[in-house]
This record gives sequence, structure tokens and C-alpha cells, in this order.
Amino acid sequence: MKTAKNRTTIRKYKETEVGQDLLNELLETACRASTCGNMQLYSIIVTRDPEMKAKLSPAHFNQPMVKSAPVVLTFCADFNRFTHWCLDRKAEPGYNNFQSFMNAAMDTLIVAQAFAMLAEEKGLGICYLGTTTYNPQAIIETLHLPRLVVPVTTLTVGYPDECPALTDRLPLEAVVHPEVYEDYTPERIDRLYAYKESLPENARFIQENHKETLAQVFTDVRYTRKDNEAMSANLLKVLEEQGFMG
Amino acid sequence: MKTAKNRTTIRKYKETEVGQDLLNELLETACRASTCGNMQLYSIIVTRDPEMKAKLSPAHFNQPMVKSAPVVLTFCADFNRFTHWCLDRKAEPGYNNFQSFMNAAMDTLIVAQAFAMLAEEKGLGICYLGTTTYNPQAIIETLHLPRLVVPVTTLTVGYPDECPALTDRLPLEAVVHPEVYEDYTPERIDRLYAYKESLPENARFIQENHKETLAQVFTDVRYTRKDNEAMSANLLKVLEEQGFMG
Repeated sequence: MKTAKNRTTIRKYKETEVGQDLLNELLETACRASTCGNMQLYSIIVTRDPEMKAKLSPAHFNQPMVKSAPVVLTFCADFNRFTHWCLDRKAEPGYNNFQSFMNAAMDTLIVAQAFAMLAEEKGLGICYLGTTTYNPQAIIETLHLPRLVVPVTTLTVGYPDECPALTDRLPLEAVVHPEVYEDYTPERIDRLYAYKESLPENARFIQENHKETLAQVFTDVRYTRKDNEAMSANLLKVLEEQGFMG
Repeated sequence: MKTAKNRTTIRKYKETEVGQDLLNELLETACRASTCGNMQLYSIIVTRDPEMKAKLSPAHFNQPMVKSAPVVLTFCADFNRFTHWCLDRKAEPGYNNFQSFMNAAMDTLIVAQAFAMLAEEKGLGICYLGTTTYNPQAIIETLHLPRLVVPVTTLTVGYPDECPALTDRLPLEAVVHPEVYEDYTPERIDRLYAYKESLPENARFIQENHKETLAQVFTDVRYTRKDNEAMSANLLKVLEEQGFMG
């Protein structure tokens, strides 16, 4: 609990290796997490080889953690293994569809977050790479992912070589709704985002990007409609290519 | 770590309430988990009211946990709040697309699993309801979810009133691939699934369902092509209705 309360994302790692025994213990324990019908609809690719990290790096827009972290874990939604099992057991699998992808993606994220929390408890630091679904083709090619396997998220893992300050979060009442969803009035938005908007680092962020509001930094620079629409089309194409759209 | 190693899903709960202070502490700590660009793209609906549980129950195929758990948490992918903030800040949001849904769904599952592990550490038991994406319309209606909000998963939460045996998992080598994905040969499938197939409860499962293999119980009874295809079409329709398909 204490670890979870004070955690931050870690992007700089010591050169210290993450031992194979520790990694296996963490992965094995993470696999105790809930899984859809106990099907374990995921695969985890462990990258330690510097050449493999260099190959993965461009898919993650060359974020330095990919090359500098001792371990990179690519968590993949996987209905291939289960489908093989069915075919080898006179059973006719019907998992080449969107719902099956979603079931597998959920299993995958649950096991990834279980791993993240267990690793942090052991003094490791992690960073999620959201870029995983932005350029999935490059990852699929590099890691030799077959049909019915799609990379969903990536964790870089290592011993922390930085100690960043806690990042802000919205007040709990912003994200929790008792009984029914209470939609947001402008007054409520003002109140809920006041603290975030008051932070000096966010003022700097606005200035550096020559914008008027913090929200504009998100819509015009970081998460633009143009990028989102291109990535949406690409991700749906990848689901099709990997056999999840029927 | 010890808790995580020995955890099981809990479907029977004591009548003991889950105090609001404890629940808030768990939710607040769970919100420290990683989130895409610190956007916190989720909302969590807390159901305690027995009438609301009764309304949610059919959407979850009347699984008894919905009515018997003291707390039901519906975790929703939410780009509505962020979009409101943008519109109120002279920023033009572009989040009505599939990639944005996926980013929000990932945030949502990460916070759900963070909550699950923290709750278990405090002696609570949880059960994930995969049914959340099977009948999302009924949940959307009951919980008054607006556009750009989609229920992704549900946790029932309470103090355990059962102590189930650990369920089996595949050996770690079945789900972890060093450096590149190693596809599965029939011999490897035999080896990896041997323990699961040797379990008496699975033999019983085959017999009760009048099937020849365990895999057939999955393909013909539990997760059929027909159901998966119907749910896929429905889920894509819901993403469209909730504004996530452009």
C-alpha cells in the first residue's frame, strides 16, 4: 500500500541487471491475476538483447527507456496459443473476432499491471509505453508475432536511477461517481482541474508550447485529432491483419 | 507478494460492509497507477444501493455476486470529462475515435487491477465480471453513461466468505517468450496443457458437458463462435453509439 501510494513512473535506470530468478518470480506471481475463463489470453515477450532493443526502439519513437532499461516486456493479447490447443483437441475455435481481441487485451493489461505493482514492491521502477499501439506493425515484425497475437502495452523495467516528484492527480470526486454518472458542468470542471492548472510545471508547459491553455497543449501538440485518426485507422488495420476482425 | 501468490477470485462475500473510508483510500491509491499522459481516462461508478444492483444484475447474466457483494465497481473508459475540459478551455478535442477508446480502456484496466491488488492486500476479495462488455447497453442505461463513456470491466468487492483452492495456471514457459515469439507445435501444446488436462475438476467438466475434450467445452459451450460474433457486432455498435468510431 505504501509503495503504491508513493509510486512514480521511472524513466532512468541503473545498469544493475534484473536477475532472471527475480523476473520469473514476478512474472509467475503476476500470472495469478484474474484471467478470462482461466484461458490466459496473453503472451509476454522479454527483451534483454541490446540488438533487439535497438530494433524495437523506433516503434516507440526512440524513447530512450527502450534501450536503457535492462528489461523490456511487450505484453501481447494472444488467442493463438489457445486456438492451437483447440485445433489439436478436435475443437473448433471461434476467436478471430473483436470481442475475443477485447477479452485478450483485458487479460493482457491485468497481467501487465499486476507485474508492475509486484515489481515496484521489489524496488524496481517501471514505465508504460503507450506507443505500443501506435506502431504495432514494427513490433509484430521484430518480435515475430503470428496471427491472433497483437502487442497491447510495453513495460520498461529496471532499478531506479532517479527519484521524480509525485505527479498530480485529479481529486477522487472527479473520477468516482456514487450510483450514477454525474455529468460535468463548467463550474465542476473549473473546480476539479483547478489544482492541475495551478501547477508551475503546467504553466511552463503552456509557455514552451506557445499555447493559451493547458488543454490546448493536449489537443494541438500531444494528442491531436490528426494523429488519433491516423492511429485509429492503423490499429483497426492491424486487428484485421492479425485476424481479429473475422 | 505473498497475497498475490495465493490470491483467488472470491464470489461469496460476508455481509460486513466495506467502509467508505477504506474504499476511498483504495480508490485514491489505485489512481496513483500509470495513466496515459496523466489524462486519467476513466470513471468508476460505485454501486451500493440494492435497487441499483438489481438493475445491473441482468446485464451480468444474473451472476449472484452483483446482488450479494456489498460494493460493485463499474470501471468505464471515459473521454467525456477530458473533452468537457478541452471545450471549456478553448481547445478542440479529437477523441471520438478508436485509438482514443483503446487509450481510455487501457487506463481503465490498469486502475481496476491496481484497485484489485490493493483491496486483496487489505483482506477483501474481488471478482472480475467479463460480462461487462457483453451487454454494455443495459449498463450504460442503468448508470446514465454519456457519450465517450463505455463500461469496460466490473469488480464485485467484499470480505471473503469462502476460501477456494488455487486455480491452475499454465507453466510460465507457456506464456513467456525470450526475445522472440516461439510459435506452438502440437508436442509443445501437449506438454504445456498436460497438467491442466490431468485435473479431476476438468475431467468432470468434460463429462458434465458431454464433450470429448476440455477444449470442446470452451468452443462449444463457454465461448462459442456464435456468441463471440454476436457480441463483437454489438460491442462495435456500442463504440459507435458512444461516439468512439469517428
